Amino acid sequence: MASSSSSLISQEPTSAKLIAKAAKTAFEASQLIPSSERVSALHEIKKELENAKEKILEANKRDLEAAQNEVISGRMSSTLLKRLDLTKGDKWDSMLQGVTDVANLPDPTGVVTYASELDDDLELYRVSCPIGVLLVIFEARPEVVVNIATLAIKSGNAAILKGGKESNETAQELSAAIQTALSKTSLPSTYIQAIQTRAEVSALLELDQYIDLVIPRGSNSLVRSIQNSTRIPVMGHADGLCSVYLDETADSEKSVRVVVDSKTDYPAACNSAETLVVHRSLLSNLWPKVAEALVQADVQLLCDAASLIALTSQTPPIPRLATHVHPVTPSAYMTEHLSLTMAVVTVDSLQAAITHINAHSSHHTDCIVTENEQAASTFCRGVDSAGTFVNASTRFADGFRYGFGTEVGISTGRIHARGPVGLEGLATYKYMLRSKGDKGHVVGEFGSGEGRKKYKHAPIQATSVPF
Amino acid sequence: MASSSSSLISQEPTSAKLIAKAAKTAFEASQLIPSSERVSALHEIKKELENAKEKILEANKRDLEAAQNEVISGRMSSTLLKRLDLTKGDKWDSMLQGVTDVANLPDPTGVVTYASELDDDLELYRVSCPIGVLLVIFEARPEVVVNIATLAIKSGNAAILKGGKESNETAQELSAAIQTALSKTSLPSTYIQAIQTRAEVSALLELDQYIDLVIPRGSNSLVRSIQNSTRIPVMGHADGLCSVYLDETADSEKSVRVVVDSKTDYPAACNSAETLVVHRSLLSNLWPKVAEALVQADVQLLCDAASLIALTSQTPPIPRLATHVHPVTPSAYMTEHLSLTMAVVTVDSLQAAITHINAHSSHHTDCIVTENEQAASTFCRGVDSAGTFVNASTRFADGFRYGFGTEVGISTGRIHARGPVGLEGLATYKYMLRSKGDKGHVVGEFGSGEGRKKYKHAPIQATSVPF
Repeated sequence: MASSSSSLISQEPTSAKLIAKAAKTAFEASQLIPSSERVSALHEIKKELENAKEKILEANKRDLEAAQNEVISGRMSSTLLKRLDLTKGDKWDSMLQGVTDVANLPDPTGVVTYASELDDDLELYRVSCPIGVLLVIFEARPEVVVNIATLAIKSGNAAILKGGKESNETAQELSAAIQTALSKTSLPSTYIQAIQTRAEVSALLELDQYIDLVIPRGSNSLVRSIQNSTRIPVMGHADGLCSVYLDETADSEKSVRVVVDSKTDYPAACNSAETLVVHRSLLSNLWPKVAEALVQADVQLLCDAASLIALTSQTPPIPRLATHVHPVTPSAYMTEHLSLTMAVVTVDSLQAAITHINAHSSHHTDCIVTENEQAASTFCRGVDSAGTFVNASTRFADGFRYGFGTEVGISTGRIHARGPVGLEGLATYKYMLRSKGDKGHVVGEFGSGEGRKKYKHAPIQATSVPF
Repeated sequence: MASSSSSLISQEPTSAKLIAKAAKTAFEASQLIPSSERVSALHEIKKELENAKEKILEANKRDLEAAQNEVISGRMSSTLLKRLDLTKGDKWDSMLQGVTDVANLPDPTGVVTYASELDDDLELYRVSCPIGVLLVIFEARPEVVVNIATLAIKSGNAAILKGGKESNETAQELSAAIQTALSKTSLPSTYIQAIQTRAEVSALLELDQYIDLVIPRGSNSLVRSIQNSTRIPVMGHADGLCSVYLDETADSEKSVRVVVDSKTDYPAACNSAETLVVHRSLLSNLWPKVAEALVQADVQLLCDAASLIALTSQTPPIPRLATHVHPVTPSAYMTEHLSLTMAVVTVDSLQAAITHINAHSSHHTDCIVTENEQAASTFCRGVDSAGTFVNASTRFADGFRYGFGTEVGISTGRIHARGPVGLEGLATYKYMLRSKGDKGHVVGEFGSGEGRKKYKHAPIQATSVPF
């Protein structure tokens, strides 16, 4: 990638390398600092953000003014503009509260998850620890700088952050406040670094010797383009194409409530439902009730032939049929609408529903509405998604709702972390092995021959490493 | 990659797609089959391998004859030739025993690792499940076909296997026996498929919609070339560059035993030590004893200036000094010798030892020999490797020795699995959420406003999903 850079940015690879190296050095140094220091650093950051509030909001005003011009000239959406505004509602306060909340969560590192005595006086501990250096790439919202820095510090990872260019001024002031705070602690101030250019990102994606995990937070195309450009593992969510399946035995009230909430509670969220799968036996009776409730909530329905005829043949017809019910095209089943639009497909069996969902969903979260325990069980095992729900809205797929206290993101990958990711998604583990024997321990003494030792493999009860 | 394929292999992408699709379909179908069927399948496989023994060994003979010619003409090493031979020692029997052993291990899937009541009658379960479709690429040893198929089936994953071309005939017969066995069970026979060509591998590496994890088992260059060519997550071990550090307070007998075992117990293994890091205070006294023991075991020592002078200035000189002790070059500290060669570096402090190891090791396994508890603790936290050992040989880094019952491989990555990987490395998890409420559960009822519900987040004691 570096070779395809234009001459204007020819210095970037060098500067990127310095940044990456500094991050790795900071990470390694931090491993010898007690985790309580990381909590103190979070409190310092909150204080420093309060101190710098005026400066930060001035920078935010400059970003907003520049963005205003972009909106006027049609190069930016007004939705994006709103996301930029740090003064909107309680955004500032909840950003600061988020720092305190994460500081108060349990430490995800230093936890023993496996411990075994391999031999007399030979103890093995698997203990959770930070991953290393994170490269986090995100779009517009500037407060993400603070969110991510907070999560990285709490979990003991160094981080390099790249925000959207629209929020550059704000992000720089936020980063400056974070670095000032870090400089008052024993953590290196290069623990959290911010970068501004795409060329730096490209150069960093080459540096797998320094960077351990890339976390893209943004569009599907952002995630895929990063996956295509790096050897470094990527933890991102590609998109959220969730479905609700109304099973043969679905209860009418549950169906209406779960489908309407899944679709309309927050249509722009990745855990909103995009597709409704309806068992054929429900077409004449339950389906029109669900359709009416959806249309009532201003949802546009894109229906396959069977579900469409079921509605058009109703007497009296459901209200707003002409404006809200349309024939579907196959691509709609692969589209993340993120709006009040829902594709509908009719199936003949539970198995057909599972097959449709596995072929079309993004393996994020899918729901069955059913009164049949066996069908619930089959659906939950057969649907290959991070979340499989019974009679509950897809909108529950969320780190806070799951009780993780915070959310790093929602992963549609299957490796390392899947579904809503809490702080433990930013941790890995290492094995510590200690011999307390008089002569140390060597492998050559074990084996199947005469006089050889056998492995003991006796579980040790321990929640932390005793040395 | 497909576009760069030559016209000779232009059909490969299509056939690769069929293979990948069949694997995904087989995986999805298998999710509704009880895991006890997978254990039965393993017993069938063992029986079928016994039935087909003659055919398999004939194929192995053909591979061996072809390889013999390659050795004679200098295109293959005799080490590689030995690895091909399925009749060597107890290889055949231990291959079959391995199938039974894995069959008898606990099921890594269906285990609840987090369960919480989010609200009255709303239960969340995080439950371990297979990853999906594995693409496993390995080199010469044909019995790996059986090992990997066994691990994949036990953990509920479909697998596509590509062995070395040297063992093609044997691998085909082994795969045929596995497929015959599968056809006698309720698992699809396409659950395990074997492919023969590199072009198929290239095409498969593009198909991230069907393949969920690539596991390369082989050389460093194999792993990196795969990481460079795919969007699919890769779990491999790049190389094993392990060190032993002799701390200021190292005990003499422990030093000799641990260093000699780490280096010589099996020099070709990835968990053998390649570098010895010596605290300067040990140069005149302990270091010559260790050096003498290593030279005695026929180890070639590549020494930095300080450690070299310490040996050459000894009176009387250690035996075989002239033939076994040489000056080091910097590249030796980055080389996986895989033979009786060891690079030696002198450091002034524990911190310098940690810095050297973090900069040069492959983050596999590193050991400190020390009598100082604080130094042990600092080393284990400061060294950023999958294994950090105290007074114990690096050779203990192994799935069987750790007590996992089997070993999928040793991962030098930090994501998903790190260090020796047992069966759980082939599992991921999904979240199942069940509402037992009269009206189902919707998100819209929760929140901070008047009359809104609060999340309960009460832990549930459960080891399996109750529906």
